[in-house]
Amino acid sequence: MALVSFAMDFTVAKVANAHAWLYHEVHSPLLKYLSWTMYPIALSAFSTGFAQSITPHSGGSGIPELKTILSGVMLEEYLAIENFGAKVVGLTCTLACGSTIFLGKVGPFVHLSSMLAAYLGKARTSVSGEYEDKSKQNEMLVAGAAVGVATVFGAPISGVLFSIEVVSSHFAVRDYWRGFFSATCGAFMFRLLAVFNSEQETIMAIFKTNFKIDLPFDLPETFFFMLLGALCGVVSCAYLFCQRWLLGYVRRNRFTAALLATEKPLYSALVAFLLASITCPLSLGQFMASRLNMKELLTSLLDNHTWVVLSQNASLARPLHVDPSQLWLEWWDPNITVFGTLVVFLVMKFWMLTLATTMPMPAGYFMPVFIYGAAIGRLVGEVVAVLFPQGIVSEGLVSPVTPGAYALAGAAAFSGAVTHSLSTALLAFEMTGQISHILPVILAVLVANAITQKFQPSFYDGTIIVKKLPYLPRIRSRHIGSYKVITQEFMKADFVTLPRDATFQEVLRVVTSTSDPEYPVVDSAETSMLLGVVQRSALIHFLQTHDATVQPHEEEVPSCQTLGEGCAFSPVTLQLSPWTSLHQAHNLFEMLSLQWAFVTQLGRVVGVVSRKELRKAIEDLANPKPTK
Amino acid sequence: MALVSFAMDFTVAKVANAHAWLYHEVHSPLLKYLSWTMYPIALSAFSTGFAQSITPHSGGSGIPELKTILSGVMLEEYLAIENFGAKVVGLTCTLACGSTIFLGKVGPFVHLSSMLAAYLGKARTSVSGEYEDKSKQNEMLVAGAAVGVATVFGAPISGVLFSIEVVSSHFAVRDYWRGFFSATCGAFMFRLLAVFNSEQETIMAIFKTNFKIDLPFDLPETFFFMLLGALCGVVSCAYLFCQRWLLGYVRRNRFTAALLATEKPLYSALVAFLLASITCPLSLGQFMASRLNMKELLTSLLDNHTWVVLSQNASLARPLHVDPSQLWLEWWDPNITVFGTLVVFLVMKFWMLTLATTMPMPAGYFMPVFIYGAAIGRLVGEVVAVLFPQGIVSEGLVSPVTPGAYALAGAAAFSGAVTHSLSTALLAFEMTGQISHILPVILAVLVANAITQKFQPSFYDGTIIVKKLPYLPRIRSRHIGSYKVITQEFMKADFVTLPRDATFQEVLRVVTSTSDPEYPVVDSAETSMLLGVVQRSALIHFLQTHDATVQPHEEEVPSCQTLGEGCAFSPVTLQLSPWTSLHQAHNLFEMLSLQWAFVTQLGRVVGVVSRKELRKAIEDLANPKPTK
Repeated sequence: MALVSFAMDFTVAKVANAHAWLYHEVHSPLLKYLSWTMYPIALSAFSTGFAQSITPHSGGSGIPELKTILSGVMLEEYLAIENFGAKVVGLTCTLACGSTIFLGKVGPFVHLSSMLAAYLGKARTSVSGEYEDKSKQNEMLVAGAAVGVATVFGAPISGVLFSIEVVSSHFAVRDYWRGFFSATCGAFMFRLLAVFNSEQETIMAIFKTNFKIDLPFDLPETFFFMLLGALCGVVSCAYLFCQRWLLGYVRRNRFTAALLATEKPLYSALVAFLLASITCPLSLGQFMASRLNMKELLTSLLDNHTWVVLSQNASLARPLHVDPSQLWLEWWDPNITVFGTLVVFLVMKFWMLTLATTMPMPAGYFMPVFIYGAAIGRLVGEVVAVLFPQGIVSEGLVSPVTPGAYALAGAAAFSGAVTHSLSTALLAFEMTGQISHILPVILAVLVANAITQKFQPSFYDGTIIVKKLPYLPRIRSRHIGSYKVITQEFMKADFVTLPRDATFQEVLRVVTSTSDPEYPVVDSAETSMLLGVVQRSALIHFLQTHDATVQPHEEEVPSCQTLGEGCAFSPVTLQLSPWTSLHQAHNLFEMLSLQWAFVTQLGRVVGVVSRKELRKAIEDLANPKPTK
Repeated sequence: MALVSFAMDFTVAKVANAHAWLYHEVHSPLLKYLSWTMYPIALSAFSTGFAQSITPHSGGSGIPELKTILSGVMLEEYLAIENFGAKVVGLTCTLACGSTIFLGKVGPFVHLSSMLAAYLGKARTSVSGEYEDKSKQNEMLVAGAAVGVATVFGAPISGVLFSIEVVSSHFAVRDYWRGFFSATCGAFMFRLLAVFNSEQETIMAIFKTNFKIDLPFDLPETFFFMLLGALCGVVSCAYLFCQRWLLGYVRRNRFTAALLATEKPLYSALVAFLLASITCPLSLGQFMASRLNMKELLTSLLDNHTWVVLSQNASLARPLHVDPSQLWLEWWDPNITVFGTLVVFLVMKFWMLTLATTMPMPAGYFMPVFIYGAAIGRLVGEVVAVLFPQGIVSEGLVSPVTPGAYALAGAAAFSGAVTHSLSTALLAFEMTGQISHILPVILAVLVANAITQKFQPSFYDGTIIVKKLPYLPRIRSRHIGSYKVITQEFMKADFVTLPRDATFQEVLRVVTSTSDPEYPVVDSAETSMLLGVVQRSALIHFLQTHDATVQPHEEEVPSCQTLGEGCAFSPVTLQLSPWTSLHQAHNLFEMLSLQWAFVTQLGRVVGVVSRKELRKAIEDLANPKPTK
């Protein structure tokens, strides 16, 4: 994965350089405009078309689907290794669009790593025999997700933590060190390749910052960091709401729905055209630093200089080419100052990013959110620097406030709020190689998370809801009544059982009339004593073999062989009782990744609980029935 | 907890200063020796006596017991808030002994925080009513443990991670953010108090380092970091083995066992006398930097200077007092050089620390292990600096190797190996405020952990084994046969059931003849259909109430009221089947903190599995029976 990540970065950099060169070489405004817009249009259309032509699963991030898989729902083909190439090529094209389309690479990389993990897991199982269980598979997938994050940012610890927070709901402590091991290898290799490619002299952080460490921040600044966290929380609520709304809208609206159903590349091209026209430096792009690519955007926002101090220098002019040592000049405009450009950036990117997430091509949504948060933080930091021009006074030495630290805190807080995770704080430290602002950054992340978790589902949960993937909502602690709800009240009492001595006809009737994946096998229809469970596939197999042998002699009674003789059924490990509370049942389903459980009373099957029933029961908590 | 931690540090510093002053003021060698030894003897004897007189649970670290509690075994009185004071006073005295006794404060602080958490949890339950379940309690306790670590080191993130790794085996992701919140508040408050006490100008890391960040390490050094990890792994295996052996030995040996049983303070005093005599600067102490306290030891080892380079300066002399800006001078001796002192320190402290862990007073064992690891790392780092005097050549600028980074890696690797945790790496970064060495440090921690986890149980698991606390061993992946073992093979088939219509006599016979905490209630003795479970305490209550009402009329038949009428029994949520595999059963026990589970077949109870049976089955995997 490190090799793939590095190769992808390398290719993307080359393509982006070619684009910048072309834009600079042509002189007529029309040609400039065309060269600016054609590139992302062509790339995103190709990305969408290529990836979608191979598999419809390659669009989007991949994290919501992985989360669903880890909750126990097997979306087999989603992790098929055959789609690896399509997603890699598609993602490379998406990234090559740069900051115009403003999409990232984390999500698809997590998906790619899990594909590889699933493939390796299968290879291992075929070697070590059948003595493997589901927990091993999940362990491989979580490790894969960790490698995905680690190889994108070169951040092993937060790679593991972020992937755990985002994709799983429970984890076994003794298992996670394998995740750590693979993530460390991935991150090490990724940074090593950068050294061998002479980008760096030794292994260092990917977005290395140079904040002063003697006196990183003054104590009263903690207050502003918390304020920043609150701001990020509010903005992320708005963002999540709009994003979910728009994602639903483009599926509802007749025009866009038709486009998305039949002409996905055209939809991508149209969106890319709109976004590229706006970011063109000849138009609004000049006020939103659109000449910078994603990496340069983040680097510039984390700059340790104070822009309001720098911009007091009268003889400033934006260079013809982007100057890597003076990236901040892209943010400076003589008319609207750095505050103006930051506000334009924030306002425009808000809806542009929301729109970009509807494009059906392989793309990550973490990095744009991270950069957006950094911009919020930079704006707040610059405002603080203006409000307190005297800065930090220490031993007579005056040093201005460091807005870069606010950018760091804003990035961690906003991305943490959008994804409902706290490890983005750690990710920020690992990415920048500095940890001196740990307490203010964590405070900002906590405040932002507290606000967003209260009002909105996370970005990934939101996508799960919109895509209608199987999803088990959490029981909110304010639903105190949930402790009183017992299984009896929400279980499905009306379900099909198969007696042990079921005949061909009975089995046939059950299989054709219902579509459950598994059926309880009982002693007899009257006593309903649970004996075990039989897979639908085993029943079909039973019917087929039975069918084949009997058909030639149709005069014979087909019930010569019953289910109990012709079909293997497996024992039931876990049975709920009618008095199991909703909380306990929810916990069991989450921890053991159950799909359904039988409810037994004195050995009799009296009900079935599946995720559907559980979900309904939880939703009923929030909207209590008027009859009760 | 932050207030307690700060007040404790403050007191300890004052006492230690007084000790240093006294030692400096007296001039005769005998008086010097006496003043050096009397202090720790008196303090450790008092610490042992005071803490033990209030509760026998106050000795030692507390983490092993907390781990046992979180695995589901309730050691009620262990978390009684009444013992809070005893442990605080005892721990303060232990810490005041300084580097002579060489013990730390993490373990007891984790214990103290959990006491407080349990107390607050009870207070909350009494407010919010009975609708609380066990998972909430565990959540509070894990958060308490996190606060304990966070307030000792001012490290919120690693506080949470370390406490999770050390005390629990599974955790729910959605719960851990409360742990983060409380740990952040604790760490913030702790560092804030340091600012208000004018120790620092602003909130900064507790052991702030100044490693150069432009080129933190050269690529080939990674190899030495991994070598250091391997060395730490091997040494930690030896340490864990010796420590467990000695802990058992002092309990077996007649003399020490008698002392520990009756005269605990005397035992502590004797050990303290031995340790203090050795560390006295007049004797061997001069070669092992014994004038430094714990904090200074760590600070000196993490020094960013290269001692072999510094010691080339000819005019060096150890100052009369410890010089805070030149702490390394304590490690320098003209005869045996810094290498000699480091080797003496490592060799002597190895058995001295092992011996100190047998003292029955409140004390933590993490900090000494951390410092010991730092000393190993410093030694390796200085050797590397001698082997490669040219150091890192970059852009013509030559800078020597930084042995402080090796000390950091050694500390993280050794403490990680001893406790079987990876988050010590993160702890090291949070404590020092620098994260530039992240990849080599994590590599060292991983290598050390790989070695130790293969050969030795962790420090805390070892204590659990020696103290014979209930303990569920893990199933090692090399036992491939474990997938074939099913519950039927290891369940206890011989157990007591209570029929629903059990009479007074029957209940009485069961209660007096067995001591199980819970009994299965069945339909009738013949059919054995499981109805529910009844607590032993409920049975006793049943007997008592029944007894009282019946005794006056002894001529009456006492079976007028049966168990089914007089006693409430609760339903059984989870039942195993005879074909549940050992792996599945182990997973369920670990995840759900079960103590026992009934095995049912067609509703009939056919067996019971408790932790004992499970443990035996796992141990049998390692030592297969010859009959099979």
